[in-house]
Amino acid sequence: MLLVLEPALEEKNIERVVRTLEELGIRAEIVRSSSQVVVFVHSDVRALPTHKFSQIDGVARVIRISSSCPLVTMNTESSIEVAGAKDVRVTIGGGAPPALIAGPCSVEGLEQILELARRVKTAGATMLRGGAFKPRTSPYEFAGLGAEALSYLKEARRLTGLPVVSEVMSCEQVELALESVDILQIGARNMYNYELLKEVGSTNKPILLKRGISATIDEYLHAIEYIMLAGNNQVILCERGIRTFEQRTRNTLDLSAVPLLKSLTGLPVVVDPSHATGKRSLVRPMSRAAIACGADGVMVEVHSTPDKSISDAEQAIDPAELQKIAMDVSHICKSLIAIDEAESGLSCAQPAEVRLVAAASSQSSG
Amino acid sequence: MLLVLEPALEEKNIERVVRTLEELGIRAEIVRSSSQVVVFVHSDVRALPTHKFSQIDGVARVIRISSSCPLVTMNTESSIEVAGAKDVRVTIGGGAPPALIAGPCSVEGLEQILELARRVKTAGATMLRGGAFKPRTSPYEFAGLGAEALSYLKEARRLTGLPVVSEVMSCEQVELALESVDILQIGARNMYNYELLKEVGSTNKPILLKRGISATIDEYLHAIEYIMLAGNNQVILCERGIRTFEQRTRNTLDLSAVPLLKSLTGLPVVVDPSHATGKRSLVRPMSRAAIACGADGVMVEVHSTPDKSISDAEQAIDPAELQKIAMDVSHICKSLIAIDEAESGLSCAQPAEVRLVAAASSQSSG
Amino acid sequence: MLLVLEPALEEKNIERVVRTLEELGIRAEIVRSSSQVVVFVHSDVRALPTHKFSQIDGVARVIRISSSCPLVTMNTESSIEVAGAKDVRVTIGGGAPPALIAGPCSVEGLEQILELARRVKTAGATMLRGGAFKPRTSPYEFAGLGAEALSYLKEARRLTGLPVVSEVMSCEQVELALESVDILQIGARNMYNYELLKEVGSTNKPILLKRGISATIDEYLHAIEYIMLAGNNQVILCERGIRTFEQRTRNTLDLSAVPLLKSLTGLPVVVDPSHATGKRSLVRPMSRAAIACGADGVMVEVHSTPDKSISDAEQAIDPAELQKIAMDVSHICKSLIAIDEAESGLSCAQPAEVRLVAAASSQSSG
Amino acid sequence: MLLVLEPALEEKNIERVVRTLEELGIRAEIVRSSSQVVVFVHSDVRALPTHKFSQIDGVARVIRISSSCPLVTMNTESSIEVAGAKDVRVTIGGGAPPALIAGPCSVEGLEQILELARRVKTAGATMLRGGAFKPRTSPYEFAGLGAEALSYLKEARRLTGLPVVSEVMSCEQVELALESVDILQIGARNMYNYELLKEVGSTNKPILLKRGISATIDEYLHAIEYIMLAGNNQVILCERGIRTFEQRTRNTLDLSAVPLLKSLTGLPVVVDPSHATGKRSLVRPMSRAAIACGADGVMVEVHSTPDKSISDAEQAIDPAELQKIAMDVSHICKSLIAIDEAESGLSCAQPAEVRLVAAASSQSSG
Repeated sequence: MLLVLEPALEEKNIERVVRTLEELGIRAEIVRSSSQVVVFVHSDVRALPTHKFSQIDGVARVIRISSSCPLVTMNTESSIEVAGAKDVRVTIGGGAPPALIAGPCSVEGLEQILELARRVKTAGATMLRGGAFKPRTSPYEFAGLGAEALSYLKEARRLTGLPVVSEVMSCEQVELALESVDILQIGARNMYNYELLKEVGSTNKPILLKRGISATIDEYLHAIEYIMLAGNNQVILCERGIRTFEQRTRNTLDLSAVPLLKSLTGLPVVVDPSHATGKRSLVRPMSRAAIACGADGVMVEVHSTPDKSISDAEQAIDPAELQKIAMDVSHICKSLIAIDEAESGLSCAQPAEVRLVAAASSQSSG
Repeated sequence: MLLVLEPALEEKNIERVVRTLEELGIRAEIVRSSSQVVVFVHSDVRALPTHKFSQIDGVARVIRISSSCPLVTMNTESSIEVAGAKDVRVTIGGGAPPALIAGPCSVEGLEQILELARRVKTAGATMLRGGAFKPRTSPYEFAGLGAEALSYLKEARRLTGLPVVSEVMSCEQVELALESVDILQIGARNMYNYELLKEVGSTNKPILLKRGISATIDEYLHAIEYIMLAGNNQVILCERGIRTFEQRTRNTLDLSAVPLLKSLTGLPVVVDPSHATGKRSLVRPMSRAAIACGADGVMVEVHSTPDKSISDAEQAIDPAELQKIAMDVSHICKSLIAIDEAESGLSCAQPAEVRLVAAASSQSSG
Repeated sequence: MLLVLEPALEEKNIERVVRTLEELGIRAEIVRSSSQVVVFVHSDVRALPTHKFSQIDGVARVIRISSSCPLVTMNTESSIEVAGAKDVRVTIGGGAPPALIAGPCSVEGLEQILELARRVKTAGATMLRGGAFKPRTSPYEFAGLGAEALSYLKEARRLTGLPVVSEVMSCEQVELALESVDILQIGARNMYNYELLKEVGSTNKPILLKRGISATIDEYLHAIEYIMLAGNNQVILCERGIRTFEQRTRNTLDLSAVPLLKSLTGLPVVVDPSHATGKRSLVRPMSRAAIACGADGVMVEVHSTPDKSISDAEQAIDPAELQKIAMDVSHICKSLIAIDEAESGLSCAQPAEVRLVAAASSQSSG
Repeated sequence: MLLVLEPALEEKNIERVVRTLEELGIRAEIVRSSSQVVVFVHSDVRALPTHKFSQIDGVARVIRISSSCPLVTMNTESSIEVAGAKDVRVTIGGGAPPALIAGPCSVEGLEQILELARRVKTAGATMLRGGAFKPRTSPYEFAGLGAEALSYLKEARRLTGLPVVSEVMSCEQVELALESVDILQIGARNMYNYELLKEVGSTNKPILLKRGISATIDEYLHAIEYIMLAGNNQVILCERGIRTFEQRTRNTLDLSAVPLLKSLTGLPVVVDPSHATGKRSLVRPMSRAAIACGADGVMVEVHSTPDKSISDAEQAIDPAELQKIAMDVSHICKSLIAIDEAESGLSCAQPAEVRLVAAASSQSSG
């Protein structure tokens, strides 16, 4: 941490700043340039609030260098195991095969969700998603079947074994969902809802925390810290697009967030190309890209007859398209494994001049 | 096209609007709702400027439905062939193996570019990039060696055969570059520089047109139209990140633009993960993602000793990392071909219930 | 509303769409162009959810022309009266003198808030703001004194008469706040927290609803609709800056939202230049601008010794600066009244050529 | 400037960094914390390019603290005098009455511009704007009458005396415009066109440099530096809205940039509410706000019959509305002067308790 002091501060006041820190048991050092005096804090002060420092007389500005999310950054590469019914256990993250989380935007009825659960499983899905409580921009749009939908999801899990992911929007809904939902989802609109984060942080369920509509990576890290500080380390991250000026897609999918978040947190990161793009035709190419840059899974909206979906119809795909995505995921995964193997060979001994990589074959003599 | 008429327009004035259109040889129809009168234009008016319609008395608003970029949208899926030296010909787009365009941000000297050209070729690059004229935010930063750099690039092409991509920023520079550069690059800062677009549109060189720093897809399409209208159809597009609120990356790489641009234009689309992310560690994962979602190539900044690069040091990779990216490109390409083959099989006859896609193997019994 | 039909739909299917609408009692008309068939809905369907239409067989796309926020748009220009203690009543909106809502970011103690309440009142404030529950990006930052702070605010109201504005973040906090708070504030992070909006919509307190961090005007209108639909029409809007790429200010204050929101809703609109800019030196000029473009008030963070503020120190002003802002508000208000008077004169009869507006005095003969 | 050294650098290498700096005549000091070694540069190195430092062996990162735009930041509060015809001289900035720059988006013909010039002058304009060369998103839209328009503008200046502001987009156009244009405008699309900035920097005309569509304040400062470094200090800045996600306005007018730019540069700053909002009804309220927060002028699009404007019809106002804006500017200016006077009184002696600011009159006893 750096404390930039006020300009033209008297010598005795500069020393008082250091003394104040020392009284708090903090080691610090004065650094002077021609135009500024700065205090370097040598001790680890990540757990202390910023105002402890900004309040000190003479301090003009506080610059944190080290992490302010100690729990997130201390987390090591980790996988999360999720149990469904019928002894099904799905591992996400930590090098496990990518999860394929699929299902309808909203649970529309018992028959619908049972049929769809069967079909997405057949197509290759490893988890079932389905909205019971839906946050809707307009109060006149369909807001989900609520508790009724939860019981349908439970039945779908019983029949297929697939673990269930579903969103909760209030503390009351968390309680209702605990029995029927295997992963509690916090939607993009609630990433800053700190009361809710603390609530799900006090459960022992894995949490799928979506990045906020226009949340910075740093705000996202802090939201995870809220959940972890409440005692729950099982957090799955989800890049779902950020809001930009571009209007051809619903949001802008920020795929560089995937390797960035993985290196910053070690937590599993999945990608939701359905909400990110809002366009059916982009779900498949963006799923491919997500897996290629290291995502631990994709989460897609599937509907038996997408055009009839009560909500978000424009972005839902059908089970046949899901099957293709499952195939994509499998093939791209294999190629990533092949790359890893080739790379260990490469780094061992091979003289660089010898390798003639296939991409070079786009050159030909005329 | 729809012409929304002014509210409470008198009947004779409504009819006059239609008559005015008819006099221009345009077929139109009046549609009335309880609150609005709208004129539907049935004729193809894409090539007519909007003000021809907004100027008509009684017209409150003009809504274009069909394309205002006829040349771009009439373009069919196409590849572009680029010639280097030594009979080397590289095809980009149209299903050709992805191009790997690599080289330094700036040409720093003859020796540097010759050594680097050799090394990127060995590592798998199919084209050489190198800045002769550099647009720099600050007038005090290194702005390129200019005409001198062009002669070095020419020599690098002669020795390696690699076609050369280099940026031009003014009409004068276009003229200077014609002899030594095989693809004229228009940088993000100049996407709206219509004088320059017309100038390169009048050459017979392929143009690599980068998307503007915060250009919408629609503005990007219009910029291509400028080049095509000047007579040059050989346009290669380049997604290089857009400006957003996120500060952890230099820009936000908008990969969904890749399949979107390909479907809208049929033109080759490459991705520049170096400028998009501004972070060396993200260049490789984003190159993988780019290829996976259908990009026709990637363009990356390479430096022998990246930390010593005069410009953009933080995002340059070394030739060893480039070689790994070449390998990635090759492997992911193969997996895309395998997917295509599997898919044609899939769509033929196979009963969906039988397929148990590999991704499902992340489920195990406990 | 327009229903764009699927391309190449058979005639009988087109007619079936219209019949389906008719069965729902909705009047509609078919419009054909060379490339598209569109159904115009003539009836008022604003209160019906979009999926009622998108679900109809053959409908490819639904375009709403008229408002989907009937309660917000039916609202007429209106003022809201807020009662403090000691028979103090403050009117906001509807042409009343601008409100000046001032106080600390956080209530830090009883003495602090009592002293500050007295000082901001003396300086010209008409309402007191003070955070009891603080949403903080980091869980390690000071999150407010909670219920304790509410009792201090109550005491501050009792002593000064000033109505109290304070933020609530959960249904539980709404209940706690009802007794001591006169305007319930919903912060920017909770604009999409629909459960909370419904909760405050069911109270009879005026609500100050801040625009979300990156909320569009349309999403903002829908959030108001949630509150109104729950029965509460007393909504005060607050522009507090939106998130953009610019990093010199904390957010970008979108002042054009002020006249826009006033014309769209008729509700009172206040501006928060403290959170918008995050810079003490910009609070005063932006307060002036807010009043000049028609805001019904400004809401500013004040601290006795701003540099010591526990939270948001960089943007707090001191009471002396508040007094200057109160003076600004008063003077600019007077000039707006003078303009109104001059304008009524102007529009009456005055020959335009005669008026030599003062601004022209910047011309002089050399 | 701070040089962050590579982690775990050997002592002799750390010392070599400092020695290398000393050889360049630069004074520096080593600062060690538990986790990092940093070199503080004490000398003024603002004029040196960053790569001089990033190239030094062992330097991991360069952080500039002081300005990298020495010419801009050394500039002191200054006004610019612009000469029209007939001995008319208009001063802009430095406390002069706000400039009112008005005229059509495009010069459409001689008669049009002459009539409009007369009418805007009568309405209170102090300068005439009019596009001869128009940058248009689509190549099919009207791009201006070019050199012909320049001769019309010259004639308009001769008749009214008003100085003329017009945009140039290429070096060739600069030459053409020198004779007939009094202020050369660089449009938002060309703020990054460094060749053009250097060109206008080598003229002796005042330059009106618009902020780029999504330019940061810092990039804007560097663009000014380009002009000043070429020898021209007469730069007028113009905030014209930035690109954000909000779609209800054409751009988002960033008025906080006005006081920010004035404090950073001392240069005159004008505001263009026409392009910023793209909505006729918002031009007047935003002009008021601009003046209230300290703008040195506003620049608005005026058309005799706005709905017939060939370009940008939706945002043009008519001369009657301009006259109202001129009146607004005059009244708000007077109120700012009254505030200044009251404030000097206020700061002298007045006991704070005595002042009862008018805004407090919104409180009444019930």
